[in-house]
Amino acid sequence: MVKVGVAGYGVIGQRLADGVALQKDMELVGVADLAPTLSVRALKERGMDYDLYLVEGADASKFNALGIPYKGSFNDLIGKVDVMLDSSPGGVGAKNKELYEKAGVKAIFQGGEKNSVADVFFHGYANYEKGLGAKYLKLTSCNTTGLIRSVDCLDRNYGVDRVAITIIRRVADPGDYHRGLTNALQMDKAPSHQAVDLMTIMPHVEATGILVHTPVTHGHIITVVAHGKDGKKITRDMALDAFKTHDRIRVVRIEDGFLGNSSFFRYARDLGNPRGDMYEIGLWEDSIVESGDNIMYAINIPQESVTIPETMDGVRAAIKMQNDSASATAETNKNLGLGRWKN
Amino acid sequence: MVKVGVAGYGVIGQRLADGVALQKDMELVGVADLAPTLSVRALKERGMDYDLYLVEGADASKFNALGIPYKGSFNDLIGKVDVMLDSSPGGVGAKNKELYEKAGVKAIFQGGEKNSVADVFFHGYANYEKGLGAKYLKLTSCNTTGLIRSVDCLDRNYGVDRVAITIIRRVADPGDYHRGLTNALQMDKAPSHQAVDLMTIMPHVEATGILVHTPVTHGHIITVVAHGKDGKKITRDMALDAFKTHDRIRVVRIEDGFLGNSSFFRYARDLGNPRGDMYEIGLWEDSIVESGDNIMYAINIPQESVTIPETMDGVRAAIKMQNDSASATAETNKNLGLGRWKN
Amino acid sequence: MVKVGVAGYGVIGQRLADGVALQKDMELVGVADLAPTLSVRALKERGMDYDLYLVEGADASKFNALGIPYKGSFNDLIGKVDVMLDSSPGGVGAKNKELYEKAGVKAIFQGGEKNSVADVFFHGYANYEKGLGAKYLKLTSCNTTGLIRSVDCLDRNYGVDRVAITIIRRVADPGDYHRGLTNALQMDKAPSHQAVDLMTIMPHVEATGILVHTPVTHGHIITVVAHGKDGKKITRDMALDAFKTHDRIRVVRIEDGFLGNSSFFRYARDLGNPRGDMYEIGLWEDSIVESGDNIMYAINIPQESVTIPETMDGVRAAIKMQNDSASATAETNKNLGLGRWKN
Amino acid sequence: MVKVGVAGYGVIGQRLADGVALQKDMELVGVADLAPTLSVRALKERGMDYDLYLVEGADASKFNALGIPYKGSFNDLIGKVDVMLDSSPGGVGAKNKELYEKAGVKAIFQGGEKNSVADVFFHGYANYEKGLGAKYLKLTSCNTTGLIRSVDCLDRNYGVDRVAITIIRRVADPGDYHRGLTNALQMDKAPSHQAVDLMTIMPHVEATGILVHTPVTHGHIITVVAHGKDGKKITRDMALDAFKTHDRIRVVRIEDGFLGNSSFFRYARDLGNPRGDMYEIGLWEDSIVESGDNIMYAINIPQESVTIPETMDGVRAAIKMQNDSASATAETNKNLGLGRWKN
Repeated sequence: MVKVGVAGYGVIGQRLADGVALQKDMELVGVADLAPTLSVRALKERGMDYDLYLVEGADASKFNALGIPYKGSFNDLIGKVDVMLDSSPGGVGAKNKELYEKAGVKAIFQGGEKNSVADVFFHGYANYEKGLGAKYLKLTSCNTTGLIRSVDCLDRNYGVDRVAITIIRRVADPGDYHRGLTNALQMDKAPSHQAVDLMTIMPHVEATGILVHTPVTHGHIITVVAHGKDGKKITRDMALDAFKTHDRIRVVRIEDGFLGNSSFFRYARDLGNPRGDMYEIGLWEDSIVESGDNIMYAINIPQESVTIPETMDGVRAAIKMQNDSASATAETNKNLGLGRWKN
Repeated sequence: MVKVGVAGYGVIGQRLADGVALQKDMELVGVADLAPTLSVRALKERGMDYDLYLVEGADASKFNALGIPYKGSFNDLIGKVDVMLDSSPGGVGAKNKELYEKAGVKAIFQGGEKNSVADVFFHGYANYEKGLGAKYLKLTSCNTTGLIRSVDCLDRNYGVDRVAITIIRRVADPGDYHRGLTNALQMDKAPSHQAVDLMTIMPHVEATGILVHTPVTHGHIITVVAHGKDGKKITRDMALDAFKTHDRIRVVRIEDGFLGNSSFFRYARDLGNPRGDMYEIGLWEDSIVESGDNIMYAINIPQESVTIPETMDGVRAAIKMQNDSASATAETNKNLGLGRWKN
Repeated sequence: MVKVGVAGYGVIGQRLADGVALQKDMELVGVADLAPTLSVRALKERGMDYDLYLVEGADASKFNALGIPYKGSFNDLIGKVDVMLDSSPGGVGAKNKELYEKAGVKAIFQGGEKNSVADVFFHGYANYEKGLGAKYLKLTSCNTTGLIRSVDCLDRNYGVDRVAITIIRRVADPGDYHRGLTNALQMDKAPSHQAVDLMTIMPHVEATGILVHTPVTHGHIITVVAHGKDGKKITRDMALDAFKTHDRIRVVRIEDGFLGNSSFFRYARDLGNPRGDMYEIGLWEDSIVESGDNIMYAINIPQESVTIPETMDGVRAAIKMQNDSASATAETNKNLGLGRWKN
Repeated sequence: MVKVGVAGYGVIGQRLADGVALQKDMELVGVADLAPTLSVRALKERGMDYDLYLVEGADASKFNALGIPYKGSFNDLIGKVDVMLDSSPGGVGAKNKELYEKAGVKAIFQGGEKNSVADVFFHGYANYEKGLGAKYLKLTSCNTTGLIRSVDCLDRNYGVDRVAITIIRRVADPGDYHRGLTNALQMDKAPSHQAVDLMTIMPHVEATGILVHTPVTHGHIITVVAHGKDGKKITRDMALDAFKTHDRIRVVRIEDGFLGNSSFFRYARDLGNPRGDMYEIGLWEDSIVESGDNIMYAINIPQESVTIPETMDGVRAAIKMQNDSASATAETNKNLGLGRWKN
């Protein structure tokens, strides 16, 4: 059993902990945080199903006053694990890394950290092998993770050498009050960092794109214009066939009720998924169209949970639990129940 | 075991089914619907944990094509239950009632139906006794249900003879596309029906109010200006003491992170509540202020799930499972885990 | 002086009337409507600067009761004009056409009507000559009008043979309550009608695209991936040069404060433009990127007013006021003050 | 002619300048700002109808590069005026005050500054006399200004001794990107500052209230529960009669098309008001209801422009242009065209 800890019990950290707890070959040792946030209070009310550790700077008296038990310090947690999943606020991960180095513990950082924090910028499907045995990995961000799933899927099956993307980004998560946008679409300077990041992970693909922020909370939508390698056309049927075989892509149709990004959220709640989360990206069958040598399609990215499977893959790579992407992602998928809906 | 069926497996119907399944003295016989909606597809993907029946007009071939099994017709379901919980779309419940009458089965309708559909307009706390043994009950709507909880709580403890309310209404549920409002606040003609409904349930209270629709999905907020009976002042401390003892009112503070309506949704997701639901209304301690003889406060209404406990109370009244509100609501609360957070 | 009437004094009709009133070689005879809407009440409060006529079915007593004077019937108006601009609600224009035919009056319909209502589907730049002397023209919709401006601009300068577009559509206008979307992005089945319409107007271009509705009111944003004719690359500088010379395209930069769609609305209000309207599409200089043989860029479409210039062009074509696009659009632009900002 | 300058040419500053320019007995000397914002660029594109001065810290080279002419420094402007209207960002006004003191120039600050910046916290109707001859006035904020108009109107006619308010606050202005809220209602700690401020201006009234932020941009809505002085009941008809006589209150009805806050914005655009602004608060006739001794009603506050009339009143008080509220507000109203719609 590989022992795993989680630093930062926020939107991502909670889901990382849940994800680890579902892996049959991993053990969640505990989670660490700084303050009795709503998420930590919920952990308490739920019955402390995960052990809590306090990071440096935490005011223990606040936890005591609320009757929230903790097992020890952040260093205590680090001392018990093989790998830390770091989902601290941006910038904090880089500081935590010093502790990981001192303890000789591997770590996987989320997309908010700078690339320089890690040895390898990682995606479970597109460059698993690069992560094998690495000390420090950084995951791609939520948009990039989902985007690469779909582009890698086409590339693996038919070859892709160029993509142009439009990201229609959700601007905040449900429950966020510290950021937001009201009745406005906001432009980012092009090219979007997601296109640039894709090229880092898949260097044989030329990518560019435009990102527009929109005032919604339930999932990004990305349109992709992908060019078949050397102009070899990918037809609508070819694309659909490939997408349907992928265990982290859920192919849906508007006519079945998947009208937009919030339909996925609604559906995941109705499925009984914890927190109403979905690990798969959605892909609309009725969005796929051909444009010359290009294939165009739209995907939905459930921003809160989409990186969890690839982070589990990251643990597998760093610890060399599996030696190739196919075996590792299959194991992650089985533990998370991914692909089950096809039966 | 009282046998219960649910008609209409939509936003409310799903939650009614979940609520019944949690009652130790009730048995969920099955749910009925018309079409393979997203909710029905989710039931299938989840593994058909509830039996499905098809209402008249359903196209069985569509269910067959999707491999969604069903147990029989709506009449089959009606024939197996003691009471039907009807959460069909507005107006359909009145038609269904003919079937219930023919079968001699009791029924409880949701707030969308006209009052005339039922013998008693019902609230588990405020007029439980009126529902005892009744054939047809109609629940108050989500806003009214939550509002009455708080007003009845003050009335029961100190006496209330007048309220003036402002309803800041969420205009759609997560996943809704058939209704919505974009960058606008919309007025309803005053007085709001919720104030009028409150007077029907609590005839000794004079109520009026104004309703404003707002473009959000995670919970209504209501401000209440309540007048102590005969001018007997209810102080801030008195109000707070009363609210804190109520098992369906969750008293929270802004400074603890409950910044608005979506904080409750976030918290319920983090608690691991199915669908991220919450049965309690929220009440902000830091919203309570005094105004002459009046006490003013703000509550949050989780519109999708708030009526579930009172509907369970309704079953208890209609079937005479308990003879008074205190025993009935205590049983419902125990089964739904309400009030547990205080420990 | 060409005499012009406007049918339907709503969002578009008001702006058509304003546009005609600004044309030195046209005379606005009057506007027609059915009911004392807010727009008609505003016309009254403003002092009846435009003459009002009542369409069939209008209840004159309602106008009388409000002291809103009218000059006569819809047929009276039709009898006085050379051309009618029909911005009636969708479907009504087709019925009005019978009146226009009887009176031998030309008409220009807006995008909401079916193409079959008109002899020519029209755009002032892209196919002006087709409209010369035509009896019935139909304008492209707001998105298509703005989109074609930019594609035609590149095509005219360098040649374009293929585009793939992503439309991030505003779902309602300011002040709309009859439609809206709340916290959701909604997909349309691909290809979007705007791409199909573009091919009708510019048959030498292959077009496809995906449309996503977003909960905002101040302008659509479209990203365009355009392929140089026969693979002849259009560079970023070439594109920018062409766009900057166009009098109906306003090239802006994020760093100058044009952060998104609502910045244009804010700017137009600050300019003192009536209703805060803008006739130009916006084009972000910092959105232009190259992708292989393609050039990619983002534009902003002010949905309420963008079709006004092309409708003025339509009058010029139908009445043969000018014989070519260059002269006609130059005249329209001069009268509307377009291009003036470059000085 | 009283000479007036404006410091800070932003959302409020632009409207103050427009307001001064409309006063027949005032002269707008110029406006001052720090950077070539969109508003300043619009001033340039409009043709520099107002003279521009640069505040300390402004980088003149930026203005030169854009060809934006300026007349001099902030001190130059101060040296030419009798009174400065300061709508600088919060906190800057207090610093500017040192310059005003040095130059012996009077100043009127907007609601964003601390009360301590001024000698008098001012409202044109409710305490005009206090401002007579004062050196430094501070206006009430937008919500408080509109709220007081309505409460003062009832108080003046019938007497009011207590109000409880619910503020449904718009969270951003059109064009704002630096603040926003997405799919959330946010609570403020009670009592709201607007209730507290009302008591400062109208010390004979006890006020409290709750404020909820909502994700919209076109106007705050406030519900008011007002108690007749000494329990003397104000009926619905009495309230309506009083409101209808007020030149800064526009009484409207839902059935006429004023469905919510954005209807006012739509109507003001259709009126041709510059920037689509409205100086009046809206008051819904169909929102007025009685509750015991209280009268309850709802008003709409056009946040960008509502304080302009009261600021003009402030100039009149500070300069002693009129000696009483009735004469001063009548003069302001005449110049701004207020009350004209009743004819």
